Amino acid sequence: MNYRIEKDTMGEIKVPADVYWGAQTERSKENFKIGPAASMPVEIIHGFAYLKKAAAITNFELGVLAEEKKNAIAAVCDEILTGDLDDQFPLVIWQTGSGTQSNMNVNEVIANRAFVKNGGKLGDENKYIHPNDDVNKSQSSNDTFPTAMHIAIYKKVVEQTIPGVTQLKTTLQAKSNAYLDVVKIGRTHLMDATPLTLGQEFSGYVSQLDHGLRALNNTLAHLSELALGGTAVGTGLNTPEGYAVNVAEEIANLTGLPFITAENKFEALAAHDALVETHGALKQIAISLNKIANDIRMLASGPRSGIGEILIPANEPGSSIMPGKVNPTQCEALTMVAAQVFGNDSTIGFGAAQGQYELNVFKPVMAANVLQSATLIADACVSFDVHCAQGIEPNREVIKRHLDNSLMLVTALNTHIGYDKSAKIAKTAHQNGTTLKEEAVNLGFLTAEQFDEWVNPMEMTGL
Amino acid sequence: MNYRIEKDTMGEIKVPADVYWGAQTERSKENFKIGPAASMPVEIIHGFAYLKKAAAITNFELGVLAEEKKNAIAAVCDEILTGDLDDQFPLVIWQTGSGTQSNMNVNEVIANRAFVKNGGKLGDENKYIHPNDDVNKSQSSNDTFPTAMHIAIYKKVVEQTIPGVTQLKTTLQAKSNAYLDVVKIGRTHLMDATPLTLGQEFSGYVSQLDHGLRALNNTLAHLSELALGGTAVGTGLNTPEGYAVNVAEEIANLTGLPFITAENKFEALAAHDALVETHGALKQIAISLNKIANDIRMLASGPRSGIGEILIPANEPGSSIMPGKVNPTQCEALTMVAAQVFGNDSTIGFGAAQGQYELNVFKPVMAANVLQSATLIADACVSFDVHCAQGIEPNREVIKRHLDNSLMLVTALNTHIGYDKSAKIAKTAHQNGTTLKEEAVNLGFLTAEQFDEWVNPMEMTGL
Amino acid sequence: MNYRIEKDTMGEIKVPADVYWGAQTERSKENFKIGPAASMPVEIIHGFAYLKKAAAITNFELGVLAEEKKNAIAAVCDEILTGDLDDQFPLVIWQTGSGTQSNMNVNEVIANRAFVKNGGKLGDENKYIHPNDDVNKSQSSNDTFPTAMHIAIYKKVVEQTIPGVTQLKTTLQAKSNAYLDVVKIGRTHLMDATPLTLGQEFSGYVSQLDHGLRALNNTLAHLSELALGGTAVGTGLNTPEGYAVNVAEEIANLTGLPFITAENKFEALAAHDALVETHGALKQIAISLNKIANDIRMLASGPRSGIGEILIPANEPGSSIMPGKVNPTQCEALTMVAAQVFGNDSTIGFGAAQGQYELNVFKPVMAANVLQSATLIADACVSFDVHCAQGIEPNREVIKRHLDNSLMLVTALNTHIGYDKSAKIAKTAHQNGTTLKEEAVNLGFLTAEQFDEWVNPMEMTGL
Amino acid sequence: MNYRIEKDTMGEIKVPADVYWGAQTERSKENFKIGPAASMPVEIIHGFAYLKKAAAITNFELGVLAEEKKNAIAAVCDEILTGDLDDQFPLVIWQTGSGTQSNMNVNEVIANRAFVKNGGKLGDENKYIHPNDDVNKSQSSNDTFPTAMHIAIYKKVVEQTIPGVTQLKTTLQAKSNAYLDVVKIGRTHLMDATPLTLGQEFSGYVSQLDHGLRALNNTLAHLSELALGGTAVGTGLNTPEGYAVNVAEEIANLTGLPFITAENKFEALAAHDALVETHGALKQIAISLNKIANDIRMLASGPRSGIGEILIPANEPGSSIMPGKVNPTQCEALTMVAAQVFGNDSTIGFGAAQGQYELNVFKPVMAANVLQSATLIADACVSFDVHCAQGIEPNREVIKRHLDNSLMLVTALNTHIGYDKSAKIAKTAHQNGTTLKEEAVNLGFLTAEQFDEWVNPMEMTGL
Repeated sequence: MNYRIEKDTMGEIKVPADVYWGAQTERSKENFKIGPAASMPVEIIHGFAYLKKAAAITNFELGVLAEEKKNAIAAVCDEILTGDLDDQFPLVIWQTGSGTQSNMNVNEVIANRAFVKNGGKLGDENKYIHPNDDVNKSQSSNDTFPTAMHIAIYKKVVEQTIPGVTQLKTTLQAKSNAYLDVVKIGRTHLMDATPLTLGQEFSGYVSQLDHGLRALNNTLAHLSELALGGTAVGTGLNTPEGYAVNVAEEIANLTGLPFITAENKFEALAAHDALVETHGALKQIAISLNKIANDIRMLASGPRSGIGEILIPANEPGSSIMPGKVNPTQCEALTMVAAQVFGNDSTIGFGAAQGQYELNVFKPVMAANVLQSATLIADACVSFDVHCAQGIEPNREVIKRHLDNSLMLVTALNTHIGYDKSAKIAKTAHQNGTTLKEEAVNLGFLTAEQFDEWVNPMEMTGL
Repeated sequence: MNYRIEKDTMGEIKVPADVYWGAQTERSKENFKIGPAASMPVEIIHGFAYLKKAAAITNFELGVLAEEKKNAIAAVCDEILTGDLDDQFPLVIWQTGSGTQSNMNVNEVIANRAFVKNGGKLGDENKYIHPNDDVNKSQSSNDTFPTAMHIAIYKKVVEQTIPGVTQLKTTLQAKSNAYLDVVKIGRTHLMDATPLTLGQEFSGYVSQLDHGLRALNNTLAHLSELALGGTAVGTGLNTPEGYAVNVAEEIANLTGLPFITAENKFEALAAHDALVETHGALKQIAISLNKIANDIRMLASGPRSGIGEILIPANEPGSSIMPGKVNPTQCEALTMVAAQVFGNDSTIGFGAAQGQYELNVFKPVMAANVLQSATLIADACVSFDVHCAQGIEPNREVIKRHLDNSLMLVTALNTHIGYDKSAKIAKTAHQNGTTLKEEAVNLGFLTAEQFDEWVNPMEMTGL
Repeated sequence: MNYRIEKDTMGEIKVPADVYWGAQTERSKENFKIGPAASMPVEIIHGFAYLKKAAAITNFELGVLAEEKKNAIAAVCDEILTGDLDDQFPLVIWQTGSGTQSNMNVNEVIANRAFVKNGGKLGDENKYIHPNDDVNKSQSSNDTFPTAMHIAIYKKVVEQTIPGVTQLKTTLQAKSNAYLDVVKIGRTHLMDATPLTLGQEFSGYVSQLDHGLRALNNTLAHLSELALGGTAVGTGLNTPEGYAVNVAEEIANLTGLPFITAENKFEALAAHDALVETHGALKQIAISLNKIANDIRMLASGPRSGIGEILIPANEPGSSIMPGKVNPTQCEALTMVAAQVFGNDSTIGFGAAQGQYELNVFKPVMAANVLQSATLIADACVSFDVHCAQGIEPNREVIKRHLDNSLMLVTALNTHIGYDKSAKIAKTAHQNGTTLKEEAVNLGFLTAEQFDEWVNPMEMTGL
Repeated sequence: MNYRIEKDTMGEIKVPADVYWGAQTERSKENFKIGPAASMPVEIIHGFAYLKKAAAITNFELGVLAEEKKNAIAAVCDEILTGDLDDQFPLVIWQTGSGTQSNMNVNEVIANRAFVKNGGKLGDENKYIHPNDDVNKSQSSNDTFPTAMHIAIYKKVVEQTIPGVTQLKTTLQAKSNAYLDVVKIGRTHLMDATPLTLGQEFSGYVSQLDHGLRALNNTLAHLSELALGGTAVGTGLNTPEGYAVNVAEEIANLTGLPFITAENKFEALAAHDALVETHGALKQIAISLNKIANDIRMLASGPRSGIGEILIPANEPGSSIMPGKVNPTQCEALTMVAAQVFGNDSTIGFGAAQGQYELNVFKPVMAANVLQSATLIADACVSFDVHCAQGIEPNREVIKRHLDNSLMLVTALNTHIGYDKSAKIAKTAHQNGTTLKEEAVNLGFLTAEQFDEWVNPMEMTGL
């Protein structure tokens, strides 16, 4: 490989000749060979692109950056947002806990790319745009990284996670409506209980996701607060008057999302409770999804020796010798995602709890984990929706058989023949392995016609 | 010990002669000898007392319970709420996952106590009030236990946790105001950084708790939903028309808290995401407290070889030969509470994720953990406030020494003599172990008077 | 209440007149009103009694404590171990993170009780035995508390947890042996699969617990290391020559357990990875128990519309109108315990990770959580064993019906009639809802006799 | 892109023309678009290569596979192990929880690649090697995936994690030896305490890692057990006599690692407690690393207003205006890794607890998390060692100043002038902000010469 020489205050360093990154990026690349390369989430990089552009515009408007430099910086930021420069960000999550080196990576790429776009040559001493003095103007790693992570996570949550969960919720609502009158046996403690309808059962899942989405929405206010303008320790040193408020507005303009400047910059640098808060809601949704997916695979279990009350789509060959062995693979993917999100919540809390003085230095690991959870939930909900939920159908025959066999229906007789006789019917049927109706008639407590009239499972559902 | 004989559908069982509980409580006591006795939180029992009274009133108003029975039940519920009957609830957390036996414990105690209050004798066959038919009327364990836990937790959170955290926040705000102009060195990555004031530093703590309290408040809507009226599986079987809405209103009346009937009873029985949601906010607050307490003990460390910038109250003898060794014991208690809450969050999530069909059977462990967290945070915040936070004072001498020694103040010279000369001053001072001022003058870049004029730490704080 | 005046270096303080504790205990009681009173586990107190006695003996043997003082201290330690003085230890977990005040509580109680036993009066100025100079001789809170917690946990694990888990494992092994030839359908992905025997299925549970017990045993070496002899920072300041090794031997003598002096005292004070290690194994066992209990309740589900392949004891009345509704309450208690242990693991790790310099100050919360887990697992295993596992029986009729209906048995025909014909049989039976045998004969591929000869589920189990 | 048509029992599907994977892989690729593509760890794929080769050899030796097929399969397995075919495995973690589709991916690639190597053309109907009948012979996804994950994790742990941790431990041991006589102040509760040496302090870190490595080694026995031979449900259906034992021996031969056949195949399919066990030890090491890294950054904090007792290498430019601001970036990376591993432990436990009947379907997420933790710990330890630990040096001047200022040294006077006079010296020095020596002489208790003779910090360390 060809190299050029770049310099920083530590001295010279060889950098691949044709990359836009500079000395500090290269140094980080060599000093942090931990896990797979380039693991810093690209969403963070794009978050940086929004904020660098917004900072350039604000700096220009407040009179501290020349218009042409503003334009040059903005143009590269736009290019980053297309994804075309994604390979210029080779750093890993496991670097400085403030993400300083990813901030410098962005600064270096913007400066060098702007220089090249204006006819410069990589490696030239005199750059048109300085990574620190221009691109990083009125900024510090300590306020840019948390700003980039808030932008990245907010966008991810509102553009993918909420739509993904909503899509699944909508399907489950449609199923609930479609099968509102399919009466089935209820189960508590895994044991046969009084009846409800399949639609009612699914309405519980809808309600779980409804509450989860509300909880997630509640966290967005904190997440909309941006640290930018706090600079090194939260005091805003080296920022022009009005900068913090204006730059947040500019980011709101650029992203179309309601970002505001953080009400307290010391909190915004030293604590990342906003991520704890948002991920708490993601974890809640994951827990709901675990319950829903587990129920669905239990309801679909069989085909002969399980519960078998619903049918789910067969997406992959089961065993070639076992027709009907439809494995609930989408349920399994979804519950594995729930497991991951559950653990990510511990990682995030562990990092959040250990901020020290003016800075929390677990930023990259926290941001990466929130982004992973938000993405996995989004993708898994869509996958589960398309490949499983939409195709769920009741197995009416099995549902009816279970319902007809149920001993719990005897409850309906209490008001007609009294508790004691009802209990005797149920106990006898249980001992003999017969039906309530058979024993009710055998015992001479009522006629078959009366049984059919009085024992009405649909009425027991309250619908 | 003397015993009397009680019966249930399993047969006879010996119960201590003078207790109000009955056969099912005794059976549970013998079948679940797990951990310390009587571990079921008393707050849950009191939650039951509210709901049993509300149910009796509602049943009476809807015409399904006689007035005298209503009055008798209500009177015992009031007695339970005084705490006088606390020793009548001997069961443990580690029982049926629906809390059925604690529901029956309450039913039995109310029935027997009402009978005795009306002149009956424990052990008599014919009870005035029947534990199932009267006390448990229009109810099931499956909807009463979650109702009791919502009542217990909501009360705890609004009556103890929020006031406790607010008390600490108020003190920290007062400290922030009082020391707003005490300029000190900032620290990022634990390393010396640009200055801020002690008041600014503390404002970050206030902001953390502010956000935490908002997050906690956001969760109360879900927590205010009561399962009561869902009965066995959520369909409301065996409840009179209008019962669910009315009984929630009655509970709201009795507690003075804004409880409503759950919008979906299937969710309210089968999922306890409301507890996940509320505890998520408690965990966020615990994480904030861990950061705050850790900062305070680091700032107070010393007395000779630590940071030593603040003084905290000496509450207990340190070593008898080591005057000045004030251990930050309240910080330690608070961070231990944070550790407990952090783990409780995992317990709650683990249980919440494993609901099956129409019922989640991790109710007691979830409720007990949320209550423990809410109590510990409340108590620890008050303890920390009274015995530590209120007594925090700046050690102005140390703060000044650190600030004067700081090399970061050189930043202020950039706009006067340029970056290169500023850097030379700082580097020379670092190498020689001298001050910026000394080297600035030695190097001939500026006069001592100019240094004093230009290097103004207070201005660097942005105040 | 009557009070006496006690003094320490902070000054005078009122102490209840008739308690053995002194000024420092009282001060802690007032400064740490967090959670329920007296929450410090009694096992820790008893651990202290062993070590105080051992220290007195060792101090005597090494010539730094008079024989009569040694005897007086030892006598009170023996009294503490009877449990008669349990009410003299009123402190909470949420105190100093080094447990200093519980160490002083023990010192004060021993000194005062010894004084009273020798005819002294509580409140007298001149004590026969000094809490610091005599009872705490050659010790520091920093090495005594971790020693007490190792003693307490080691005892709990070997005397209760391991026997409890082993008792359950033994029953499961007996069930595995008893039902080794009960062929049943296997289930993977919750779907019908090839057969195995009930005994084989249970052998997996036995193997889980076997591996868990081995893992737990592996952790005992680290747990057997005692910090005592390290004193304040691990250097052993103020201990006589040979003390550390001898006092550990003495503790081993007194407890009958193989304690040794820690190989590195700095580790033993500043890190409590031994607790992380032991609790890691407890968590593994809890996870195994969660799986086992969940399987058992699924296998026992029904009675009509579940899996129903095993019968478990009916310990409590289910619904009075629903005979046969045996709720799997012991499974529920066991899985709730698993949830608690799961969360405790996070608490312990969170505390262990945050030791600072020469001391970890999360000792009480870590010790209390390990003890809770060890106790709950022990108790819940015994409860589950006695009230559930011992009574498990196969429901042979259901097992046979499921097996006979299974389509997976067709696999056995592959070697006789080829894969394609076998698949055709299975598919046709699935579509028609018939049996393999019916369709095999209908399709003319083989005779009923051949089917009975070739399709032998027992052979498919490999037994 | 060009496509070819592949078939499976679900029908036809378009597959990219030039890839070796087949219908089932493609189907999974389309059905599980969750998270980044190809996230299934390559170590699992290589684990499969070992086992497929071993199975082919064993099948041949037991007479159920032709020699030429064995050779063809083995040759492709060798090719996979070179890494040249890594791009042929496009599937994700979030698929079937049994990893079935990754097993089929390997089967298809081996079959197609073998066919092409023998002159066949992708897309031809008649393959030389059948993915199921030949490559998967005597196997099931249910036993191959857990076997592949045990191989992958065992290799990772012994080839990377243990060496990585050991490398760091060795450096810390060397530092401990080198600075064994550098006396410094001890700190407990973050407060000044009695002295120890820097070497003693570091010996605690060494001991933590020593114990962690022992704990990790203890888990290898369980991890060495291979599920292979259990096939679908653990009974070994469709395997030749002797297969399970032989194939494990063959895998041991091929990998040079002591693998054995699992002692209970039902446990090996339905539970993955072995992963819980191994990751428990990884978590313990991560917790130790968090403590060590945190201590080192606190000891290195400054340069002027921190603890400053050690110097760590400056690897990246700090602020250009702040010479001496060496951020402890390697500490930050290491503690972020600790946070990740801490959370991964929850993910793994959550999945492990939810196995059902004969299969745990959280295999891929569990395996991926263990592998991530093992890799991150290995890489981060090496990075921390090379870029931080090896360069640690004492700042002797600061260490001496702290030690000389310490009031705790007064302890050494107790035996010469008594406790009361010693305490008076210390208290006076504390109040006046002077040294012990000054006040000792001022108070007339001893001479300066006596002070220097009696107060010997090195002796207080016990060395």
